[in-house]
Amino acid sequence: MSQAGNVVIAQGGGPTAVINASLFGLVKAATQGLKRSGKVWGARGGIVGVQKHSWIDLRMPSNTLWKQIMLSPGAALGSCRKMLNLEEAIEAVHILCKNDVRYFFHIGGNDSMDTALKMSDAASALNYEMACCGIPKTIDNDLSGTDHCPGFGSAARYIAQSTVDLGMDIRALPTPVSILEVMGRNAGWLTASTLIARRDPDDAPHLIYVPEVPLSRTNFLGDVQRVYEKYGWVVVTVSEGVKDENGASWGTDHRKKTDGFGHPLPGDVAAELAALVNAELGLRARSEKPGLLGRSSALMVSAADRLEAEGVAIFGASWAMKGNTSFMASIQRRRTRKYAVEYGAVPLMSVANVTRLLPAEYISSDRNDITEGYRTYVEPLIGGPLLRYARLESKERRTATTKTRKGI
Amino acid sequence: MSQAGNVVIAQGGGPTAVINASLFGLVKAATQGLKRSGKVWGARGGIVGVQKHSWIDLRMPSNTLWKQIMLSPGAALGSCRKMLNLEEAIEAVHILCKNDVRYFFHIGGNDSMDTALKMSDAASALNYEMACCGIPKTIDNDLSGTDHCPGFGSAARYIAQSTVDLGMDIRALPTPVSILEVMGRNAGWLTASTLIARRDPDDAPHLIYVPEVPLSRTNFLGDVQRVYEKYGWVVVTVSEGVKDENGASWGTDHRKKTDGFGHPLPGDVAAELAALVNAELGLRARSEKPGLLGRSSALMVSAADRLEAEGVAIFGASWAMKGNTSFMASIQRRRTRKYAVEYGAVPLMSVANVTRLLPAEYISSDRNDITEGYRTYVEPLIGGPLLRYARLESKERRTATTKTRKGI
Repeated sequence: MSQAGNVVIAQGGGPTAVINASLFGLVKAATQGLKRSGKVWGARGGIVGVQKHSWIDLRMPSNTLWKQIMLSPGAALGSCRKMLNLEEAIEAVHILCKNDVRYFFHIGGNDSMDTALKMSDAASALNYEMACCGIPKTIDNDLSGTDHCPGFGSAARYIAQSTVDLGMDIRALPTPVSILEVMGRNAGWLTASTLIARRDPDDAPHLIYVPEVPLSRTNFLGDVQRVYEKYGWVVVTVSEGVKDENGASWGTDHRKKTDGFGHPLPGDVAAELAALVNAELGLRARSEKPGLLGRSSALMVSAADRLEAEGVAIFGASWAMKGNTSFMASIQRRRTRKYAVEYGAVPLMSVANVTRLLPAEYISSDRNDITEGYRTYVEPLIGGPLLRYARLESKERRTATTKTRKGI
Repeated sequence: MSQAGNVVIAQGGGPTAVINASLFGLVKAATQGLKRSGKVWGARGGIVGVQKHSWIDLRMPSNTLWKQIMLSPGAALGSCRKMLNLEEAIEAVHILCKNDVRYFFHIGGNDSMDTALKMSDAASALNYEMACCGIPKTIDNDLSGTDHCPGFGSAARYIAQSTVDLGMDIRALPTPVSILEVMGRNAGWLTASTLIARRDPDDAPHLIYVPEVPLSRTNFLGDVQRVYEKYGWVVVTVSEGVKDENGASWGTDHRKKTDGFGHPLPGDVAAELAALVNAELGLRARSEKPGLLGRSSALMVSAADRLEAEGVAIFGASWAMKGNTSFMASIQRRRTRKYAVEYGAVPLMSVANVTRLLPAEYISSDRNDITEGYRTYVEPLIGGPLLRYARLESKERRTATTKTRKGI
């Protein structure tokens, strides 16, 4: 049965490589579910576009264009970091009401779910019947109520492959230490994914630091020195949000700045750690910080991630059109041997502003590494094996080489 | 006619994604050119491995392993940054002489060519007949005597694609400024390659800064402000080696450190520039620094680059076995409409320690951009078109969107 009314979709927060697959899923499902006369609008620049009534007709673009958009990184509608208070949400709902919008979809992370909840509260307060639905999206993978978040698998693939590549470079190099900075302000899911790069014990990464564990200067330097003595080279992966034992952020540059949501911006952690290794251990160290490249590389998209980004959005749209509201669509992993998922819905109330941290079971007892259990969790999400490389020498020979290299 | 004597190959300086294709080319050609009893050895860890007589038999690995090695980033033999003086070179030639080595190949950049020349001088001084040959390799593309250098095309592909990807992300983002740091201490060839990313005038990158042009604080801030006012977002690409108008390096961290060749290590230029934009223009700015990932990504390898890396090495080996010495194999571009190359040889004397800078004709009159002439030079080297994306809105609409976004 076709539903009356119109649809507005917004994208919030930082984009991912598959956020437009969710957008496409919503448009497709909404177009099918609505009456022929129903409109599907996209708000330009996130919730701010809703407030400003800056909307674009999403039923207009051709199928060919949609196929291309789906494969394009960045938020096709534009995004913002604004959070609405209830008063602003009420004003926004007034605008939606005037345009007979009966379905509001917000694709985003924790903060965007809060805004979706505010919109839902505002609609209730106004006694206006409108379904408010969140579609999960974050490379941080820190939304609760879902097994994982669309966007995460592709970012995990990017950073794990980059760790393999970096390991090949540093292994052969006279600069023996590299610190790879990974996005993630509060949760270490993405940084932990670099574990996938390691197959042999001496493979990169040798040390993994997540924001869930305080990183003291002493422990860090001790860890690096110990790995260097063992292998002759060290690749460290570290989350941009890692804190010291007093809870202060590592990194120097942006420490006092905050983003649009009021969160402090993390600094250049890897650069600071590399400088520390140079100064204190006398080892040549450098840092790499792919930053936004890690969430915008279409070449590194996980096929599973893209499919799920579209699938969870289609589920969300149809669930809303079945009369449900104030929920976030979610991905649940089946308890089967072979990886499989099904989609569901959780109350927005339970996910808005909640940060799901990396569980303690995934953090090694030394607190500088990730446990193998995490590999089982994350490997199916990256959409197939990484590109692996060969080395000229056998392990025994490599050990000899390493010994030689230390003297260089 | 098969040649008597043995071969030693070393890899010097930072690796590239195709350095092992050159290694493979040398091994293949040397194996064909030598007598059946002739040895082809690889020195572990660069010239230091030659000095220490730490060698590996390169005729041993299977064809299957060689195919994998060829596709693997990093220096398969290991590398170093040591430069030999004549005395050390004489000692090294003594070791080669004792093992009846009649061909020495050094795969590397400017400094490695200097070492190859020293080895050649040492052999002459000892009246020992040994061909000394350099095989060009550097992502910096700053060797003279060759149209371009193996490794450069793949690194150019990586950074140009990354600029396209980053542009898609930033265009849709409330953080309107991103500074992308590109490798290259002295020469701007690689940073200039980000020009390929730009098709429409408003595409990233909007500003390109190379080390050949001093970058003053005032000009930089003025440029960013102007682009921001025009488009509402700014992507800057900057070489790690860029200097200010007094010749001092930008970037803070490693300023006083030097690498093994005695060159100062460049700092985190992009991070410093982003902090400056934050502080002085009040615009949210961030930095990305893929660093070594830009030369170790096998996924981004340019097919043309890999073929040439192998081809120029094969030429070098056969040229040496024809009785030539003290040369670097080189790539010359044919004057044909369709891109084609031939290989040649230039005296080591003319390339050792010479840095080929980006010619002035490729730098825009405003000195903050690269001319279209450079596109003609660089595009054939990246091995095919980049991955391009679609956008939802037409140009007219996007302009309207940009106007809206500025208010966010």
